[in-house]
Amino acid sequence: MSSGAGFVTGEGDSRPPVRMGILGVGRIGRLHAQLLHREVPGATVTAVADLVPDTAERVAAGLGVPALGIDDLLASDDVDAVAICTSTPTHVDLTVRAAEAGKAIMCEKPVSLDLGEVDRAIAAVESAGVPFMVGFNRRFDPGHASVRQAVESGAIGELHTLRITSRDPAPPPPEYVAASGGIFLDMMIHDFDMARFITGSEVVEVYARGAVRIDPRIGEAGDVDTAVVLLTHEDGTLTTIDNSRQAVYGYDQRIEAFGSGGLAASDNPSRHGGWRMTADGREGEPLPWFFLERYLSSYRHEWAAFVALVRDGGQSPVDTVDGRAPVAIGMAATRSMREGRPVAISEIG
Amino acid sequence: MSSGAGFVTGEGDSRPPVRMGILGVGRIGRLHAQLLHREVPGATVTAVADLVPDTAERVAAGLGVPALGIDDLLASDDVDAVAICTSTPTHVDLTVRAAEAGKAIMCEKPVSLDLGEVDRAIAAVESAGVPFMVGFNRRFDPGHASVRQAVESGAIGELHTLRITSRDPAPPPPEYVAASGGIFLDMMIHDFDMARFITGSEVVEVYARGAVRIDPRIGEAGDVDTAVVLLTHEDGTLTTIDNSRQAVYGYDQRIEAFGSGGLAASDNPSRHGGWRMTADGREGEPLPWFFLERYLSSYRHEWAAFVALVRDGGQSPVDTVDGRAPVAIGMAATRSMREGRPVAISEIG
Amino acid sequence: MSSGAGFVTGEGDSRPPVRMGILGVGRIGRLHAQLLHREVPGATVTAVADLVPDTAERVAAGLGVPALGIDDLLASDDVDAVAICTSTPTHVDLTVRAAEAGKAIMCEKPVSLDLGEVDRAIAAVESAGVPFMVGFNRRFDPGHASVRQAVESGAIGELHTLRITSRDPAPPPPEYVAASGGIFLDMMIHDFDMARFITGSEVVEVYARGAVRIDPRIGEAGDVDTAVVLLTHEDGTLTTIDNSRQAVYGYDQRIEAFGSGGLAASDNPSRHGGWRMTADGREGEPLPWFFLERYLSSYRHEWAAFVALVRDGGQSPVDTVDGRAPVAIGMAATRSMREGRPVAISEIG
Amino acid sequence: MSSGAGFVTGEGDSRPPVRMGILGVGRIGRLHAQLLHREVPGATVTAVADLVPDTAERVAAGLGVPALGIDDLLASDDVDAVAICTSTPTHVDLTVRAAEAGKAIMCEKPVSLDLGEVDRAIAAVESAGVPFMVGFNRRFDPGHASVRQAVESGAIGELHTLRITSRDPAPPPPEYVAASGGIFLDMMIHDFDMARFITGSEVVEVYARGAVRIDPRIGEAGDVDTAVVLLTHEDGTLTTIDNSRQAVYGYDQRIEAFGSGGLAASDNPSRHGGWRMTADGREGEPLPWFFLERYLSSYRHEWAAFVALVRDGGQSPVDTVDGRAPVAIGMAATRSMREGRPVAISEIG
Repeated sequence: MSSGAGFVTGEGDSRPPVRMGILGVGRIGRLHAQLLHREVPGATVTAVADLVPDTAERVAAGLGVPALGIDDLLASDDVDAVAICTSTPTHVDLTVRAAEAGKAIMCEKPVSLDLGEVDRAIAAVESAGVPFMVGFNRRFDPGHASVRQAVESGAIGELHTLRITSRDPAPPPPEYVAASGGIFLDMMIHDFDMARFITGSEVVEVYARGAVRIDPRIGEAGDVDTAVVLLTHEDGTLTTIDNSRQAVYGYDQRIEAFGSGGLAASDNPSRHGGWRMTADGREGEPLPWFFLERYLSSYRHEWAAFVALVRDGGQSPVDTVDGRAPVAIGMAATRSMREGRPVAISEIG
Repeated sequence: MSSGAGFVTGEGDSRPPVRMGILGVGRIGRLHAQLLHREVPGATVTAVADLVPDTAERVAAGLGVPALGIDDLLASDDVDAVAICTSTPTHVDLTVRAAEAGKAIMCEKPVSLDLGEVDRAIAAVESAGVPFMVGFNRRFDPGHASVRQAVESGAIGELHTLRITSRDPAPPPPEYVAASGGIFLDMMIHDFDMARFITGSEVVEVYARGAVRIDPRIGEAGDVDTAVVLLTHEDGTLTTIDNSRQAVYGYDQRIEAFGSGGLAASDNPSRHGGWRMTADGREGEPLPWFFLERYLSSYRHEWAAFVALVRDGGQSPVDTVDGRAPVAIGMAATRSMREGRPVAISEIG
Repeated sequence: MSSGAGFVTGEGDSRPPVRMGILGVGRIGRLHAQLLHREVPGATVTAVADLVPDTAERVAAGLGVPALGIDDLLASDDVDAVAICTSTPTHVDLTVRAAEAGKAIMCEKPVSLDLGEVDRAIAAVESAGVPFMVGFNRRFDPGHASVRQAVESGAIGELHTLRITSRDPAPPPPEYVAASGGIFLDMMIHDFDMARFITGSEVVEVYARGAVRIDPRIGEAGDVDTAVVLLTHEDGTLTTIDNSRQAVYGYDQRIEAFGSGGLAASDNPSRHGGWRMTADGREGEPLPWFFLERYLSSYRHEWAAFVALVRDGGQSPVDTVDGRAPVAIGMAATRSMREGRPVAISEIG
Repeated sequence: MSSGAGFVTGEGDSRPPVRMGILGVGRIGRLHAQLLHREVPGATVTAVADLVPDTAERVAAGLGVPALGIDDLLASDDVDAVAICTSTPTHVDLTVRAAEAGKAIMCEKPVSLDLGEVDRAIAAVESAGVPFMVGFNRRFDPGHASVRQAVESGAIGELHTLRITSRDPAPPPPEYVAASGGIFLDMMIHDFDMARFITGSEVVEVYARGAVRIDPRIGEAGDVDTAVVLLTHEDGTLTTIDNSRQAVYGYDQRIEAFGSGGLAASDNPSRHGGWRMTADGREGEPLPWFFLERYLSSYRHEWAAFVALVRDGGQSPVDTVDGRAPVAIGMAATRSMREGRPVAISEIG
C-alpha cells in the first residue's frame, strides 16, 4: 500500500525484470517511464520512442536508456513489453504492430474512438496471444478497489444503485476538447469503466444529458463541459454518473455503491490532515488538485498488475472486452444526448 | 436552532397564540398536535378531530382539549387555523371547506394525487384569501436549508448539478404501497420539492428508471422500491435523485449542490458522537433510524414559519405553486418510467 | 434515543407518575421543571419553590402547578421527590431536610464545596434510606456513555490513558467566578466525574497547572481560566483533562479512551450536517454553542434514570460516593496548582 | 506537495546537485539514500559508508555509487554533505569529523543522549561554520506544518494549550528498548521537538508519569511503554503529550493547538478513502501502519529544506539549539517520572 514500502523492503523476486519500451513520452508516458524505471519492482525501462525525436532523446538521457525509432524499438530483443502512451489515433496501429512483434502490451485508454478500430486491435492481440492490458488505472486505486471488494464479497449484499462523481479541477484547452472525441469518450470513459468494474455487470442502456456551463468555447468545439448519465445494467443495477470539467475546489473523485446490505464508498483523500476551527466554523482538509496526487498509487498498483500478468500469465485485469465496452457506452451516451432519448448498447456497433 | 432553546428563553411575543384545530390525529397529526400544543411559541391547540372518534377522544384527553366533529371544528370560533393531517384523498375537500370557513391552512403533502383536484384546492384558497402552506418540512431542516442558502447567496456560484439521496430505513407494508400513488408521488415527492427549493428553478423534463429490488410484493402492488430520476431544470441545472425503500444502516438523507464556485452539501447527522478504532478499523457514528430523530427540528421550524405566516402575512414559504409542481413532476416520472422515455412537464395536465 | 420518540409512542407504563417538587427555578431548575412536566415519561411536576416568590409564581403559572414555600413543598403529600436546583451553598441543608421528609432526591452538582458538608448530606440520605442521585448529567450523554460502554465491555481492552477536553463557548461573569469555588470545583468537576465514570477506577493523585489567559478579571477574582490536569488512577490509568473558559468556536466537549485493544471516542456533534467546499477549502459543520444544544438528550436520559430509581429502587447511577469523590479531586487539584506539586487524594479530607 | 509532482515537472534549477555521502545505511540511512538519489531535486548520492562492509557494498551497488570507508568518504572531493544515519552513540564523533572536513551535515535525531556530548557537536559545527540540520522530520509533515502556520500567522490567536498524541503500532524489541535511552529520549523526543516548534516557546518545566502496560519486558529493561507529560512553556502555554508503544489500530500521530482565536489540528490521514456503512454501523478509514506511509512526504520536504540550506545558506530550519533542547526536556521528564515531582529545565545540565 505504502508508496514508501518499496524503499526499505526491496528486491524479493529473483527473476529478471520485465524490460519495457515506452512508446510516446509526453506527460503520461514520461510518468510511466519514471515509475517503471525506478519504482516498480520487477520492471525496468530499456528503450523509449517518440514522434518528436528531441523529446525522446531528452527523456532517454534522463533515464540512461537509448532513444530508438518505433520500428527499432518494436524489433529490439531488449524489449519484452511496450507501454503505448502516444495520442489516441495511433493506439490501434501500434497495438497491432506490437502484437505482431510478440510484445506484451499496455495500451493507454481509450484504445480508439472507433469501435471497428478497437476490434482490429483486439483481433491482433488475440491472434498473437500476447499479454494485453488497457490503462484504466482507477481500478487500482485502493479506495475504489475497496468498493469493488465490498460488492464482490457480498459485504453490502446485492447491489441496487451506484453513483460516480468525477470532476476535474480545471478544463482542458478548447483545442484539446475539439480532438478529444467529446466528454463521454475522453473523460467519462473512466467512469464507464468503473461502472462495469464495480458492478461486474454489463451496461445495456444509456441516458445522457449535457450542458455547457463552464466555458462557451467548449460548446463552440461541439462538446459539453457538464454531463449527467444514467446507466442501466444487465443485472438491474442503476448507475448515475456526473462529470464536470471544473471543480474549483480540486480533483473530486468519488464512488458510492448501495445495496441490500449497506453502502460502500470511496471518498476523496485529503491533501493532508490539517484543519482549523474558529468563530467562522471549521475549515481545511483541502482536496488533491493534481491527478498524480490522487492517483499515483493507482499507477504503481497498475504496473505491479501488468508485471504479474507478463510474468505469470492468466487473465488480464483490464482485458480486451474492458477496452471495448466503455467506448461503446461512450458512443451510446453521445447519441443519447444528441437525440434526447435513452439509447440501448445494442444499437451501437 | 437548539431544540432546547425554547425551554429557557420563552415568552417574548405578547400577542395571543394562533389557535390550531388538528384534522386527523394519526401518527403525523399526533406529532403536530403535541408540537403545537407544548413546544411551538405562539401556537396552541384548541380542538382535534378524527374520523375515528376513539382516537380523537384519546388524543384530545391527552392534550386537555375537546374532540370535535369536523364540521364543528371548522365552525368553531376558537380555531384560527387548521392542520390537515388526514389521509391524502381527503386533503382537497378539507382544504376547500377550511378555506370557505376562513381558516388558515397547513396541508400535509401531497395535496392530492390528481392535478385537477390540486387546482380545485388552490382555487378555494385563493378565493378565500386565507394563509396556506404545504407540509414540505424538509425545507426547514437546518442542513438542507444551509444548501439553499449557499445557492441563493451565490456562495457556490452558478448552480450546475444537484444530487439528492433519500433512503428509508425499512419499506412500508405492501398494502400501504398499493394506495400510495407510487414511489414518485409518495416518497420522491419530497425530493422533487427539494430540487425546486434548492435550485429555485422549475423542472422542465423528467427521465425516470425504477426497479423492484427489495420486496417483490411491492412489485405485485404495481410499484417499484428503487428509483433513479434525472431532472432538467429551466435554468439548465441537472438534478439526479435516487430513492430506496430500505437502507439497512438507517435513514439516509443527503443533498449536494455543485456549482461554478464550489459545492454545498447536507450530510446525515450522526445519532451521537461516539466511535471506536480497533485493529479491525474505525467503527461507529450510527445514522438516525426514525424519521423524527432526523427531522424533528424541521417540524419545529416549519411550525414557526406557519405561525409567522398567520400572524404577519406575506408570502407563504411553501405556497400553492409549491403544492402543485411536485405532483406534476411525480406524474411525469411515473409516465417516464412506464414509457421508457424522457417526459416533458408540459405533457402533464 | 430520539428526542422525538416520546411524542409518538407514548404511554406504555401504567403506574402513576413520580410527582416532582422543584426547589429553585432559576435557569437549570426551570429546564428540569419543563422537561419533567412535559417530556419525561413517568414524571410530572406538582409544585415549585424558589427563594424569589415572583419567580416561583411565574414558573408555577406556566406549568399550571402551585408555587409553595420550601417547607410546604417538603411537607406536601403531592410530592414524591425533589429536584434541588438552588445555589450550591443551600444544597446540603435542603438535601438533609428532603431526606428527613422522606422524599427521593436529585441534587444538582456539586453537592457542596466543603467535604464535611458533603458527608453531612450523605449521612442524612443514608439514614433516611431515600433514593438519591447527583446531577452529573454527562454520564447520560449517548456519545460519552458509548465510551464507558466500550471500556466496560472490554471492546478496547485494558484501559491505558484517558483524555478529556471541556471548553465553554464564553466565560462566566467575574462575579460568578468569585463565588464558584474555582475552575476545578465549578467546571472541571464534571470532568473528574467523567474520569471516574469512564475508567471505573478511583483517582489517587492529581497534578494541576492553571493560567489566566482569557480574562484578567478572572485572575483578579483568584481563579484561572485555563487549566490542565493529570490524574493517576488506582488501576494505573493516566487521565489528562484540559479546560478553557472560552472556545470561540463553540461548546467543545470530547473524550478519548485508549487501551490495549484500541480507542473509543466521543466527539462533538455538529449543529447540523451542512458544509461547503470552495476554492478556499472545506468549511462548515459548526459546533453547538449553547449547553442545551449539546446536552439536552443527556438531561432526558438522566431523568429517565431517576424515575427508574424512584420506581424500581436499586443502585443509584450517580450515588453518594459519586457526589463526594469529584469534590475531593477538585480540592486536590486546587492545592496542586497552588503548591506546584502532585497532591495525593489521601491528603484531602 | 504531491509526491508525484516531481515526476512530470522536473528539472528547473540548473545548479549542480548537492553531492551527498550517506554514513550508515541501515533502515533509515537506506531510505535517505534512495530518496536523495532518485527523488530529491537538487541532490544526488555519490558515496555510502557503513560499519558493516557487506551492507555498504550492497546498498552502493543498488545505487550505482562507490562504498567507501568513513575516512575516505569524509575526505572525498565528490562529497559536499553527509547524512549521519548511524547509531546514536556515534553521532557526535561523526558530526565533529564531518564538520572538521568542511562538510554540510544532516544528523539523525537524537544528536546524543548526553548533553555534554551534544555541546561538543555544536561547538564543532559552529567552529567550522558548516550548514547543520537535525533530522526532526515531523516539522516537515504538511499537516503538522499547517498547525505551526496557524499559530505563527495568528490565525488561532494567542496559544493557550497544545496537545500531542504519538502512538506506535507495535513496540520495539526489549533489547532495543534497553539501549534506547528510555521512552522520553527515544520516542517522545519527537514530541518535545514538536512542542517547541508549534509554540515557538521554550519549555521551562516538565511533569511526567509513566507506566508499563503493554510489555513487562519493557519494564524489566528499566523503561515504561505508556507515558503522559505536562510541559509548561516560557510564554505560559501548557502542553500535554501522551505516548504509547502500541496502538493496535495503527500509527497514531495527532496534534491540536488551542488558542484565543480557535484551534488548529493535524489529524491522522486515512490509508485510503474507502469505507462502508452496514446495519452494524460505519466502518473503514484505516490508519497508516508503517511510519513511511505516514511520514514519507515529511522526509521529501526535509531533504528539500536541507538542499536549500546547503545551496542558499541562511538559518537552519532545525538548528543546533533545536538539537539540544529536546534532549534536555527528555532528561527532565525522565527525572520527573523517577522522583514524582515537576522538574525545571534549569535543573538539567
